[in-house]
Amino acid sequence: MTLANHFELIGQSDAARLGRLTTPHGVVRTPAFMPVGTLGAMKGLHWREVRDAGADIVLGNTYHLMLRPGAERIAALGGLQKFTTWNGPMLTDSGGFQVMSLAQLRKVTEKAVNFRSHIDGAAIELSPERAIEVQLLLGSDIAMQLDECVRLPAERDDIDRAMRLSLRWAERCKRAFEHAPQGHMLFGIVQGGDVPELRQQSARGLIEIGFHGYAIGGLAVGEPQQVMLAMIEETAPVLPQDRPRYLMGVGTPEDILEAVARGIDMFDCVMPTRNGRHGVAFTRFGSVNLRNARHADDPRPLDAESNWPSTRNCSRAYLHHLVKSGETLGAMLLSEINIAYYQSLMSGIREAIGNGTFEAFRQQTREDWARGDIPAL
Amino acid sequence: MTLANHFELIGQSDAARLGRLTTPHGVVRTPAFMPVGTLGAMKGLHWREVRDAGADIVLGNTYHLMLRPGAERIAALGGLQKFTTWNGPMLTDSGGFQVMSLAQLRKVTEKAVNFRSHIDGAAIELSPERAIEVQLLLGSDIAMQLDECVRLPAERDDIDRAMRLSLRWAERCKRAFEHAPQGHMLFGIVQGGDVPELRQQSARGLIEIGFHGYAIGGLAVGEPQQVMLAMIEETAPVLPQDRPRYLMGVGTPEDILEAVARGIDMFDCVMPTRNGRHGVAFTRFGSVNLRNARHADDPRPLDAESNWPSTRNCSRAYLHHLVKSGETLGAMLLSEINIAYYQSLMSGIREAIGNGTFEAFRQQTREDWARGDIPAL
Repeated sequence: MTLANHFELIGQSDAARLGRLTTPHGVVRTPAFMPVGTLGAMKGLHWREVRDAGADIVLGNTYHLMLRPGAERIAALGGLQKFTTWNGPMLTDSGGFQVMSLAQLRKVTEKAVNFRSHIDGAAIELSPERAIEVQLLLGSDIAMQLDECVRLPAERDDIDRAMRLSLRWAERCKRAFEHAPQGHMLFGIVQGGDVPELRQQSARGLIEIGFHGYAIGGLAVGEPQQVMLAMIEETAPVLPQDRPRYLMGVGTPEDILEAVARGIDMFDCVMPTRNGRHGVAFTRFGSVNLRNARHADDPRPLDAESNWPSTRNCSRAYLHHLVKSGETLGAMLLSEINIAYYQSLMSGIREAIGNGTFEAFRQQTREDWARGDIPAL
Repeated sequence: MTLANHFELIGQSDAARLGRLTTPHGVVRTPAFMPVGTLGAMKGLHWREVRDAGADIVLGNTYHLMLRPGAERIAALGGLQKFTTWNGPMLTDSGGFQVMSLAQLRKVTEKAVNFRSHIDGAAIELSPERAIEVQLLLGSDIAMQLDECVRLPAERDDIDRAMRLSLRWAERCKRAFEHAPQGHMLFGIVQGGDVPELRQQSARGLIEIGFHGYAIGGLAVGEPQQVMLAMIEETAPVLPQDRPRYLMGVGTPEDILEAVARGIDMFDCVMPTRNGRHGVAFTRFGSVNLRNARHADDPRPLDAESNWPSTRNCSRAYLHHLVKSGETLGAMLLSEINIAYYQSLMSGIREAIGNGTFEAFRQQTREDWARGDIPAL
């Protein structure tokens, strides 16, 4: 079955792509960075701030939401977008990745993955069919297939086995998705670890099944950046031009810039909020650790030319004080500063692709990062 | 020496007073509730939210700020208003209250209170002169005298001794404040525990010294509400009509309404943010514990008629989920919801006094609280 296409490729600059993805809850400008709202909440940010920062779409974690507050409950409350008050496009993962990283007594069979909840130890079965059912209950604009993700480094046989299982699960997910409401999308996930042939086999297998979009999974799981970029280079050319491509769980601003240069359209990562909670800001001049005593008496903001008010107005001394004192406001400010930086990076990327000047933008951005933070007072 | 008056009494409705207090950083509409930004930050709120909620003035804690980041550092960075980005009127306490509740190895002498920092154990002396010096370094719009506050119940002799020491310290504070910049204010603090004669002696002693405003301290420290209200009734009539009156550390919405009815103009309390962090919302219909399972499936907001967006738009189910999951956003939302409720109460109070209908407002508000929350679904 061919699935309707909701993606429009509106520009290209070398391999970098500018697009528009139309979801039931609104349009997503790509390349897009999706902030992660794990449990139906962004850590340290109000939804209004996520929107003001320029995010069109956010990600919710199926594993967390199915355990608490429960998918059936969210469905009864009108779906995840309404429940959270975000009211915009949402992508949900399948739950598989968190099952691998968080759940206890995990067992993967052909049929499903069985595990115990990390909250109350309850025995739960997550099959491809249930993963789709849960995501349909949540009302995700974009659902992801259930897959098995192998942590790198791994044996080729393990990578191969998990990739093939993921392909069979992909087929079952597509079948389960047949009665999804109009406009909702399902993405397949390319697996294959760091083995180029397996990546290509996985991509071809998924294309044969046919999805609204294609994700590259199982990267940013401990391998060097060069391996990640090489795997994108092996995979992206195989993927259909007219469908969105999503690099899961990535990453640093540099990872994103380099992946866009290789034809990726969508990203998600907890890094901007997690690093913000640990006192680290992302800026045009690289990352800045506000715990450092050099900031204690520094009245200058992180970036006087930023278009985000907190980045432009809060002194480094104030941020340092808040972080050192463990004040919630420190984590709140740095989380929004980081989400705003990521979104301004995406906006700069989109503008440059639109103008056909992506390569110059990429060089300039890399130079600014390499120059590093302003000298201490 | 008579101190210039910056307070204008612009209306009265029975004993309730409507006023304007002009500070170097802006005008404060009274009766005013001051949210507490302990360490130069409101817990769980951005400053823009505090302002949007309708607060004209906030409180900073001298004890915390002198330990971290240090008063001299804040002075070098342009003062507390600029340092925090609040840029509006700020009152600071003297540090005395927190020394009593937080510091270790505390010793009170005629000269000063000596203690060890609860952060690093450093030996610190806080004299009346140093308390004023620190508040001038912070740049407080309104500084408070150093006093000794006795926890109730207490022996009359203890209350009497502390009240007389506080009076002698009040004189030293006023002397130390002589060279304060134009427009900055110093308030004296009425002590005297739950003993009417001592309260009146304290008030008369302070008036003789002469301050820009008068606070009532040492209440809301464990005594029943009736005792607190009785002490206000003993004290307020003694205080000059043309100066602002500030009831320190109070309190519940009901405490505030009843104190306004007895002629109080200013309040501060951590309750809205602290209770918010513990999952409790203040509403027109009393307080609502969002941890309660009755809210788990309830799509209704806390108050559909509130003029604060989060109060009107977030479902009880969502708030319940956030609180139960320990998500920061739960504390953030409930803290802003509570600050907004307190400010809307103050705004209602001010409007009613202006219209000469305070008594009707007070009755209606008490009835709404007494009716309680909407029935469960």
